[in-house]
Amino acid sequence: MNLRIVLVEPLYQGNVGSVTRAMKNFGFSDLVLVNPCKLEGEARAMSSHARDLLENAKIVSTLEEAIEDCSIIIGTTGIAGSRFDLHLRVPGYTPEEMKERLSGVDGKVAVLFGREDNGFTREELKKCDMIMTIPTSEVYPVMNLSHAVTVVLYEFSSIKSGETPLADPFDIRLLYGHLSELLDDIDYPEHKKEKTDLMLKRIFGRACLMPREVQTLRGIIRKIQRNCNNENGNSNVFENEEK
Amino acid sequence: MNLRIVLVEPLYQGNVGSVTRAMKNFGFSDLVLVNPCKLEGEARAMSSHARDLLENAKIVSTLEEAIEDCSIIIGTTGIAGSRFDLHLRVPGYTPEEMKERLSGVDGKVAVLFGREDNGFTREELKKCDMIMTIPTSEVYPVMNLSHAVTVVLYEFSSIKSGETPLADPFDIRLLYGHLSELLDDIDYPEHKKEKTDLMLKRIFGRACLMPREVQTLRGIIRKIQRNCNNENGNSNVFENEEK
Repeated sequence: MNLRIVLVEPLYQGNVGSVTRAMKNFGFSDLVLVNPCKLEGEARAMSSHARDLLENAKIVSTLEEAIEDCSIIIGTTGIAGSRFDLHLRVPGYTPEEMKERLSGVDGKVAVLFGREDNGFTREELKKCDMIMTIPTSEVYPVMNLSHAVTVVLYEFSSIKSGETPLADPFDIRLLYGHLSELLDDIDYPEHKKEKTDLMLKRIFGRACLMPREVQTLRGIIRKIQRNCNNENGNSNVFENEEK
Repeated sequence: MNLRIVLVEPLYQGNVGSVTRAMKNFGFSDLVLVNPCKLEGEARAMSSHARDLLENAKIVSTLEEAIEDCSIIIGTTGIAGSRFDLHLRVPGYTPEEMKERLSGVDGKVAVLFGREDNGFTREELKKCDMIMTIPTSEVYPVMNLSHAVTVVLYEFSSIKSGETPLADPFDIRLLYGHLSELLDDIDYPEHKKEKTDLMLKRIFGRACLMPREVQTLRGIIRKIQRNCNNENGNSNVFENEEK
């Protein structure tokens, strides 16, 4: 499986080292760190025999850079979402459910883990296609970062990737932009737009779209736009066409 | 599920603290430490909000004390056994397979984790009914202790205990003693006896015996002994009867 682990602004170097060890234990090596803490002796000590992974980890300054070449972005949160109307943390899949969903796909998948203290920002969560939550006790749901990564790696290490190609990340971003544009075209209420953008991203995100599906969806959107514009007597149809 | 975690001579207090955190995350609290390292500031720091578990952990000086009231003893090893003739590490179940095996039972189950550097001694492994191995990469199979515990707790936290009672630990020990006695009675070759004792323990161990089954098995052994003794013209039949 083509899996990338992304740690967003990890605070404790021991955790980063522990994560590399767990990754090597389960046969993964693609690690990207967004603005990490200093990585020194303790990180190396905890990485143990995975020091090569620690040294080869890619360090970037923005989440965008970390995920730009990934077809599916999964955010791992300790707190399952309950407010379905917000779409931000729902639906939250267990690692086991996520495993089933990813079985058979062929493409790069990023799993994101947030800061040890504050998790993800709202903007970071919005970049995720799917949300994953490890089922824990309500009494103490906050797991150690490297423990959470270990559980996910353990579960994902048995995923059999297959032949179902995932759409290109660039095309997926075009689709979301196009959907957003469509909402503008139909004068969708401005105050609802952000939530609806996110809902559409959650729906299509968990569908793990294939290349052909993205093209067809965009073709449908184009036809809708053309029709709407005609209805409204608007003649600048071609403005909404792709160049 | 009635689960006990047993750490045998853990060397690093940070790991013990981390284990208590993972236990509380997954809703478990029964921790027994056999001759642990000193537990001070680092153990408390890593336990985070599970300090109560750390303080309530039972400390004993022998493995026997740690498991005497448990019906099933599972040893977790990083190295899967390959030599089936030795019976020591085989069969090795994955946590997922073990979960299926334990679903529906009602009784106390101990999961043992060995030292960070040397795992278990041969004598300790022999006390286990079943062996569990987390499937890891061949390149680097040695997991951090708290990571290994976390994976097992994650998997076992979804076990639904049921109504199938497990036999009393005392009766199970009597059965094994009785089986060993039977091997003596039939003049089983001395040099094979230890391995065969272990093989029988592995067979009956993974069967998760119920109380009635243990009694019936012991009844069968008694009848066999009586018959053998008669065959051999041996008249001191009652020596092999229970008092």
